[in-house]
Amino acid sequence: LLMSGSQCARLGGPLVRQLLDSVDSVLFDCDGVIWRGDQAIPGAARVISLLKQRGKKVFFVTNNSTKTRKMYADKLSSLGFDAAEDEVFGTAFCCAAYLRSECGLRGKVYLVGSDAMRQELEAVGIQAVGVGPDPVSGKQLDWASVPLDPEVQAVVVGFDEHFSYMKLNRAMQYLTQKDCLFVGTNRDTRLPLEGGKAVPGTGCLLQAVETAAQRQAQTVGKPSRFMFECVAQRFGLRPERCLMVGDRLDTDILLGSACGLKTLLTLTGVMVPDYYVESIADLLPALQGE
Amino acid sequence: LLMSGSQCARLGGPLVRQLLDSVDSVLFDCDGVIWRGDQAIPGAARVISLLKQRGKKVFFVTNNSTKTRKMYADKLSSLGFDAAEDEVFGTAFCCAAYLRSECGLRGKVYLVGSDAMRQELEAVGIQAVGVGPDPVSGKQLDWASVPLDPEVQAVVVGFDEHFSYMKLNRAMQYLTQKDCLFVGTNRDTRLPLEGGKAVPGTGCLLQAVETAAQRQAQTVGKPSRFMFECVAQRFGLRPERCLMVGDRLDTDILLGSACGLKTLLTLTGVMVPDYYVESIADLLPALQGE
Repeated sequence: LLMSGSQCARLGGPLVRQLLDSVDSVLFDCDGVIWRGDQAIPGAARVISLLKQRGKKVFFVTNNSTKTRKMYADKLSSLGFDAAEDEVFGTAFCCAAYLRSECGLRGKVYLVGSDAMRQELEAVGIQAVGVGPDPVSGKQLDWASVPLDPEVQAVVVGFDEHFSYMKLNRAMQYLTQKDCLFVGTNRDTRLPLEGGKAVPGTGCLLQAVETAAQRQAQTVGKPSRFMFECVAQRFGLRPERCLMVGDRLDTDILLGSACGLKTLLTLTGVMVPDYYVESIADLLPALQGE
Repeated sequence: LLMSGSQCARLGGPLVRQLLDSVDSVLFDCDGVIWRGDQAIPGAARVISLLKQRGKKVFFVTNNSTKTRKMYADKLSSLGFDAAEDEVFGTAFCCAAYLRSECGLRGKVYLVGSDAMRQELEAVGIQAVGVGPDPVSGKQLDWASVPLDPEVQAVVVGFDEHFSYMKLNRAMQYLTQKDCLFVGTNRDTRLPLEGGKAVPGTGCLLQAVETAAQRQAQTVGKPSRFMFECVAQRFGLRPERCLMVGDRLDTDILLGSACGLKTLLTLTGVMVPDYYVESIADLLPALQGE
């Protein structure tokens, strides 16, 4: 096993309590860690409620940009998790927070993204245009002169099932203005599914826009440090007292290492986290045994 | 001027005849060289007819994939150029030629591209599916299981104003099959227009598909050598007796240098061609003076 070296220990036995004693907060990635698609990982809900009973703060930190905090809290509840809306940090919410508090944006956003992103932006007072299909009407002759909204001051790219050449073109035209901000939710290139399947991730869409615009977007999602800072600022977290739990090395574990958190991987991979388990349920015995 | 060094000479005076005497064939890029949009560059039509009168073979070599040879010949005629269909080498035609003669493809193609590309593929006996809008119907829940055509053996990406997340996803699913061929027309990332404007080029779309598929496409357009070989094979051209005329250094001039052609740039840029002129009409005096 790639992670069997001295730097990564299999988490189990007395090491679990030791680790849990050393942290105050646990940040969980969602898909692949506490659920898969629409199915809770067996034991995960129990782990989370026991962590809370022991006084740990728990957060849900996901690069998925298709849901608002409210939608996540509802999904968590429906799957049996004890979770509050303000414990959820998805990229739809974090992106809105970034534009509002880091950039001080007051103008509109041209949004290549979901309606959930539009809702999170509106919740912080930022109006978003562009959500939904943007069909080519008849024969489009003058692509470079598509109507633009003069109040747009930022282009934001998240997951968009209605992504199209028209949207790519509109994003590029806005980004020709040098003072137009350019923010992406995340760079995940593929979204892996059950059975070895996968679909294109937001990274593909963002790269197309970056290529056209000849500019690099600032991304807020893991492994960008902003994703942790977004949580840390609101709850006064000390990095060394936090544990990041994830199934992806290039996002979850990389973010954790970069920010000085303890890191726990739930699957095998190519990079080296501090610890790993086969399932989050491996924490159960130690949690229940107390 | 970047090109004023010893390697690039301003073409004019006796040098024009000297150059023309040293070649049998002249390959012209189209947009920006002999026309701009729908306007012929003044003098260009005359240059081409005079070259032909002097026994030169003339070819039109373009990365634009939105027109068939026939459509180009019609456009050339309507703008006053003396041009035959078999002198035109666009990437729609060259892509079809590549799949048929280089790859020996007999199955279908999943085409992210124009109807012109579909027509050129059909002309060599290859059926293409996927052209036109591919709308998301209702709530798409299972992206990874979109219906695929089992006869598809290649994914081809050209310019597609109907490019969408659905098409990106479908292309990725086909490319999961390791023996599925993957061909792109060209990698131009931006299509520059008048007045400093531009729109996203095929390279943006191709990069999105490559990112999702985790595979590199073979491209046929300039600067790929295939674009010259496509002409050379059919007309028995000797590279050293050819002149490539273009306005782009990263495609036209790069192809010319790579294949051992003489190269002529019509605009200024960052790389160093053998010669440059401010307009193709700069050839006129020498041509008319004989």
